[in-house]
Amino acid sequence: MIDRLIEKIKEKNNPTVAGLDPKLDYVPEEMKAAAFKEYGENFTGAAQAILAFNKTLIDALYDIVPAVKPQAAYYEMYGIEGLKCMKETIEYAKSKGMYVILDGKRGDIGATSEAYAKAYLGQTEIAGHSEAAFDADCLTVNPYLGTDGIKPFTDQCIKNQKGIFVLVKTSNKSSGELQDMKTGNKFIYEHMADLVKDWGSELIGTYGYSSVGAVVGATYPEQAEALRERMPHTYFLVPGYGAQGGKAEDVAKSFNRDGLGAIVNASRSIMCAYQKNGGTLGDAARQEAIRMRDDILSALKG
Amino acid sequence: MIDRLIEKIKEKNNPTVAGLDPKLDYVPEEMKAAAFKEYGENFTGAAQAILAFNKTLIDALYDIVPAVKPQAAYYEMYGIEGLKCMKETIEYAKSKGMYVILDGKRGDIGATSEAYAKAYLGQTEIAGHSEAAFDADCLTVNPYLGTDGIKPFTDQCIKNQKGIFVLVKTSNKSSGELQDMKTGNKFIYEHMADLVKDWGSELIGTYGYSSVGAVVGATYPEQAEALRERMPHTYFLVPGYGAQGGKAEDVAKSFNRDGLGAIVNASRSIMCAYQKNGGTLGDAARQEAIRMRDDILSALKG
Repeated sequence: MIDRLIEKIKEKNNPTVAGLDPKLDYVPEEMKAAAFKEYGENFTGAAQAILAFNKTLIDALYDIVPAVKPQAAYYEMYGIEGLKCMKETIEYAKSKGMYVILDGKRGDIGATSEAYAKAYLGQTEIAGHSEAAFDADCLTVNPYLGTDGIKPFTDQCIKNQKGIFVLVKTSNKSSGELQDMKTGNKFIYEHMADLVKDWGSELIGTYGYSSVGAVVGATYPEQAEALRERMPHTYFLVPGYGAQGGKAEDVAKSFNRDGLGAIVNASRSIMCAYQKNGGTLGDAARQEAIRMRDDILSALKG
Repeated sequence: MIDRLIEKIKEKNNPTVAGLDPKLDYVPEEMKAAAFKEYGENFTGAAQAILAFNKTLIDALYDIVPAVKPQAAYYEMYGIEGLKCMKETIEYAKSKGMYVILDGKRGDIGATSEAYAKAYLGQTEIAGHSEAAFDADCLTVNPYLGTDGIKPFTDQCIKNQKGIFVLVKTSNKSSGELQDMKTGNKFIYEHMADLVKDWGSELIGTYGYSSVGAVVGATYPEQAEALRERMPHTYFLVPGYGAQGGKAEDVAKSFNRDGLGAIVNASRSIMCAYQKNGGTLGDAARQEAIRMRDDILSALKG
């Protein structure tokens, strides 16, 4: 449910999300050494180092940042141990009151999307009862397969008060190869935007926004501006601020006049602030999160 | 490397792959009861039931079917235990000489696709050495983000003799919402086909086929025929035969005159053959796999 995210954004006056895409290189040496010493120089040690890293970041951020966005790939690459770390990271962030957007970009034909939707936003039935596998608040979803690959996710959103962000215009350099193709009088990203609007039309919450959001990269501010107008009730998840090159005035275009409508992600600039600016992992991340918040809030006032 | 798949297809004279998308409902009652009794009515019990189910199918099929295709969603829905089952299924199938196509439809921006590529087709570095997380032979990939989301996968294909199948025209009902849009004088699926051809042009193997393949649904035989002509050096992974409605004469359109060029998937019709036709799980699956093979081979002769 997008309402829960919006409440946390309002409460903290901070429309940003901290991405948890933890490469082992980002983890402080002493934290890695401690985990390797206790668990070995293997997937278990690596996953435990990353878990300690994530918990330190969450502890440093949870009272000022409304949400975290773990990127599934960076956990899957450490196998089962990495996925345990992802699950514990989700649980830990939720226990601290943060909203968890799992960045998995899942999507498949209907029956398979249903399995993904249960895995990340719902429950799986076993012999007459149900258990949650990963239980995030929200999941990123890939729309290449169309409506029947999306509906199982929106069903779980309705059933369990969850949300999804559907890829519309991504932040990467080659996003235009497909997304900027023109079809009739629309670009593909506009066509997808119209589909996303439609998929979310029955899930509008208290603040006028749908639980079916859109991923709109900060690196394409003109497209973001056009999309903002095209889909006024759609919340945007905005990657690409900071390390990828998006600036505060760029991401400002993804917001509505109510100061809502977008949540901006930064990953590397927060996770690696201590490497760049010195200080402890937690303190440096917190300072960078505050700087980012203020940077964006001041662009929104302008 | 597509060569390894082609060799197995030739050796068994069988251009099919058995999909392992195991719902708990598909597992024979006594197999479920045994796993629940030993491990509890929980994710562990469910995952163990599914592992026993998969092993029985692999034992029944490995000498006549060249490949299996586990669908990641059906393992992720059982959490960590489900993923352990997926990993063990991959290892077991490989130990029996089968080629493993992991159906995960991953895809993201470059840095993140690199993490996915390492997770499924490569190795992850830890403190100066490397380990493989899931180590499939091949992965399905979603192209919505364009070239920079694909290149990390092709890099791993080159490095580790692996393969990918990129979504081009999917088998589901709503695939046309995006894929059949017309842009200039091409449909989007044709535009994607041209990109896939390009991505695979440096990875052509001994038999004239690239390790960058395409997913082309059996349910759209006209498009498959046009795509076959458009991308002669691209191997097709063809879902949609059987339960989804695709017939042997439909899938025949995805093959080249050399009898190669496509591998046809069936999941439910093989996994659930014992429910429909009686007999044991293994025997019924084997009979259905033989029937499917002969059905397709005879359509290829026609």
